[in-house]
Amino acid sequence: MDLNSFKEKVMPSFEKEMLAYIGKDLTKKEKLHEAMSYSLAAGGKRIRPLLLLATIQTLGGNVKKGYAASAALEFIHTYSLIHDDLPAMDDDDLRRGKPTSHIVYGEDIAILAGDALLTQAFEIVAASEIQLEKKLKLILALAKAAGPEGMILGQMADIQGEGKNLNLEELQLIHRNKTGELLKFPIYAACVISDAIPEVAEQLVKYAEHIGLAYQIRDDILDVIGDVEEIGKNIGMDEAHNKSTYPGLLTLVGAKKALDQELAAAKENLMAVEYISKDSTKPIKINLLEEIIDLLVID
Amino acid sequence: MDLNSFKEKVMPSFEKEMLAYIGKDLTKKEKLHEAMSYSLAAGGKRIRPLLLLATIQTLGGNVKKGYAASAALEFIHTYSLIHDDLPAMDDDDLRRGKPTSHIVYGEDIAILAGDALLTQAFEIVAASEIQLEKKLKLILALAKAAGPEGMILGQMADIQGEGKNLNLEELQLIHRNKTGELLKFPIYAACVISDAIPEVAEQLVKYAEHIGLAYQIRDDILDVIGDVEEIGKNIGMDEAHNKSTYPGLLTLVGAKKALDQELAAAKENLMAVEYISKDSTKPIKINLLEEIIDLLVID
Repeated sequence: MDLNSFKEKVMPSFEKEMLAYIGKDLTKKEKLHEAMSYSLAAGGKRIRPLLLLATIQTLGGNVKKGYAASAALEFIHTYSLIHDDLPAMDDDDLRRGKPTSHIVYGEDIAILAGDALLTQAFEIVAASEIQLEKKLKLILALAKAAGPEGMILGQMADIQGEGKNLNLEELQLIHRNKTGELLKFPIYAACVISDAIPEVAEQLVKYAEHIGLAYQIRDDILDVIGDVEEIGKNIGMDEAHNKSTYPGLLTLVGAKKALDQELAAAKENLMAVEYISKDSTKPIKINLLEEIIDLLVID
Repeated sequence: MDLNSFKEKVMPSFEKEMLAYIGKDLTKKEKLHEAMSYSLAAGGKRIRPLLLLATIQTLGGNVKKGYAASAALEFIHTYSLIHDDLPAMDDDDLRRGKPTSHIVYGEDIAILAGDALLTQAFEIVAASEIQLEKKLKLILALAKAAGPEGMILGQMADIQGEGKNLNLEELQLIHRNKTGELLKFPIYAACVISDAIPEVAEQLVKYAEHIGLAYQIRDDILDVIGDVEEIGKNIGMDEAHNKSTYPGLLTLVGAKKALDQELAAAKENLMAVEYISKDSTKPIKINLLEEIIDLLVID
């Protein structure tokens, strides 16, 4: 199965299940759940759920067993965007081509909707139908990835780095935390859910790290050369916020080269997975995860 | 053992363990963890941890087994105060007699510190040393109590009720969610941790519900008759925010009567616990939880 067939087969049913977690009758003018749904449904590429579910498929596991963790992850990703967009933070009024939460619902409800999505994420995993041990591993990993030693540490370093000239190492440290941890979690979660052997899990997590950095480099590049319609948010915001970026540090050509290097490294990890499993009863086919690499290429 | 002896014996070691979860070297000018610690250490009566630990003691359990859940609960309570105090929410500059988080650290860091406390709360429970089944029960109950069908729903209803004349039923619905759920959780958690029999757990959870309402009625009364030094925050804020309150709905005398009624009902639940356990090998002594009722009395 190629990535497009997989997406067509899996993502609509995942999407439906994810939105159903909100569970309120949204016709009742109940603003909290409406605001949660608004940001959750506002599109986005669902790259994190796709990574999780495609990795389960790759490992020969039951893809549906990954829906809850994927939904929780997307809840957390969405909360982080709502809070990031607040006036006191990045002050963005456009996200994925739509007005941001605080523009539509006001700052107070945007703050609460973010808090609610974050909290419910843990409820979703805790209530999911996988083994107890696995649930606890996922809850622990998700809290670490999203918490003050993970994503929030990265957001904090990002804020404190504004207006400063960061070097490449400092910039990578921010990104490894700010976006990297939540891109690594889906691969880790898939390995837990599908009982991947440690050697395979190790390579897949490295793959996730390279994908994570590539994703951020690509984001920085698109902020310079992309257009609003394609990427669904205002461009040139990094420069406006005086943020250190890969193109700023490495030039645009250098940033594109760094992107290619991360993607090549990710591919090597997949080759290793293929090699490790080649003599097993079920050799692992890496094509889905290879195609995800291709999604991140900038021509 | 009376409540004061229990507090002296237990609370300082709990306090130390709770603050140790932040775990960073705070001399390094690392603002995120500093902000988390600041609000966490800013005092407060630790009524929720006290309820949890005193209930474990009452049930004859191991009090130390309740430290992690108590810390998680106080993390969540603290996050909710930080976000509640934000300019876009209640806009309070004073909390527990000290400047609020956004006054000291700025709004952006206050938002992140709140997010971080909330996220880490789940990590603390997931990493704690109790049985897997119990951990999952606690995580699920905590997420529900703090989430969009619990505390946040109450905060939302509170915001939407501002400037409206709520009736008593609407007011109680707000409080049952906004503060009640997080006051019920510690009792529930203690029952889970200490394997309380269902009949006892049922009475204790009802006790918690009455304590929760009493706590809120008391808070409303103190907002009218208290003084800043004693309660550590500005008074008259409810009226300033045009909020419906018990004294507003019932008069001050009526509110005091309602408070007494809740406390009397809580006491009856404790009597029931005593009665249920009177013939068992280990009759339950209710004096600690009785003394907590006394703490809430307004003369």
